[in-house]
Amino acid sequence: MPVFSPSVETLITELSKMPGIGRKSAQRIAFHLLKISKVEALSLATAIENVRERVSLCSVCFNITESDPCPICKDENRDQTVLCIVERPSDVMAVEKTGRFKGRFHVLGGAFAPLQGIGPDELRIDELLARLDGQVKEIILATNPNTEGEATATFLAKLMQPLGLTVTRLAQGLPIGSDLDLADEVTLTRAIEGRVEIK
Amino acid sequence: MPVFSPSVETLITELSKMPGIGRKSAQRIAFHLLKISKVEALSLATAIENVRERVSLCSVCFNITESDPCPICKDENRDQTVLCIVERPSDVMAVEKTGRFKGRFHVLGGAFAPLQGIGPDELRIDELLARLDGQVKEIILATNPNTEGEATATFLAKLMQPLGLTVTRLAQGLPIGSDLDLADEVTLTRAIEGRVEIK
Repeated sequence: MPVFSPSVETLITELSKMPGIGRKSAQRIAFHLLKISKVEALSLATAIENVRERVSLCSVCFNITESDPCPICKDENRDQTVLCIVERPSDVMAVEKTGRFKGRFHVLGGAFAPLQGIGPDELRIDELLARLDGQVKEIILATNPNTEGEATATFLAKLMQPLGLTVTRLAQGLPIGSDLDLADEVTLTRAIEGRVEIK
Repeated sequence: MPVFSPSVETLITELSKMPGIGRKSAQRIAFHLLKISKVEALSLATAIENVRERVSLCSVCFNITESDPCPICKDENRDQTVLCIVERPSDVMAVEKTGRFKGRFHVLGGAFAPLQGIGPDELRIDELLARLDGQVKEIILATNPNTEGEATATFLAKLMQPLGLTVTRLAQGLPIGSDLDLADEVTLTRAIEGRVEIK
């Protein structure tokens, strides 16, 4: 006999499928959804439906958007000579939040992962090459600083350097606010290798 | 300018309202909901709608249920002489999972919280008294082992002892699998006070 009523059990199961939500948290959220007003609970359901109804991928940069091309690709004021290559739409948001980058983006849709069968053909690399129409002068490789992201960045750098483009990679080093003695060896090694002269 | 598209922003806001979900987790879940298939994403929305459509409170014990009276109240095989008093429906589930209790429940709907204006009139105490029809012999007070739960239990004990009922309280002490030297003082005090002779 299931402990919960069928629809509560279903809700807990569905919630548990979300990243970072275990069964205990799912249970807590399910009971919260039963405790708050019906209008409040349904507005979460509606938000999920709306997002799947309205959001699609930009046909130019493959970022998520509600209009095609996306607001960033459509913005004439953005620098069209710099292209920032990221793995996922959430990475676009992360870079945008800094307010420091004024170029355009290209979302690969992931990084190389041979064990999951993800190689160059599974990423949007052909679409990236098609965008290099002469206007683009610099490529910033902003894939993740892990094995998969590094492999992808190395591959893309080799592919694009012969085209006469400036290819850069995001700096790696100690994160701000961290403790030196708590940094892992690889990060500290990169920080030493990439040390910058104070002038 | 919002960083995300409007419907993604709305979804993140709605997700952040759930207990234990901050903005970072909400963002992660929102992107997960965009990544998985539409069918999978919508099944979470449907689960929320169904739960609010089908689940209501049992008119006898006030546990959440899809049929009234709830399966526990309807079950003739359960011991009708023992009533377990809990604060919330999730507490019913917790006790049920032990498989150790075969009586019935009464859900108070909370515990005393003077600062939030929750006193005896805000809890389902009249409904509890109405259920004490002579069949019930023992009351197990299973409110939470915190200030509010203790105050509620003390109040209910004083109310029901004059009725000739056996009133018990869940044992308090060291949780199984814990470390003695990590136990807080109050818990350890209760464990000493409530020590049991080994025979």
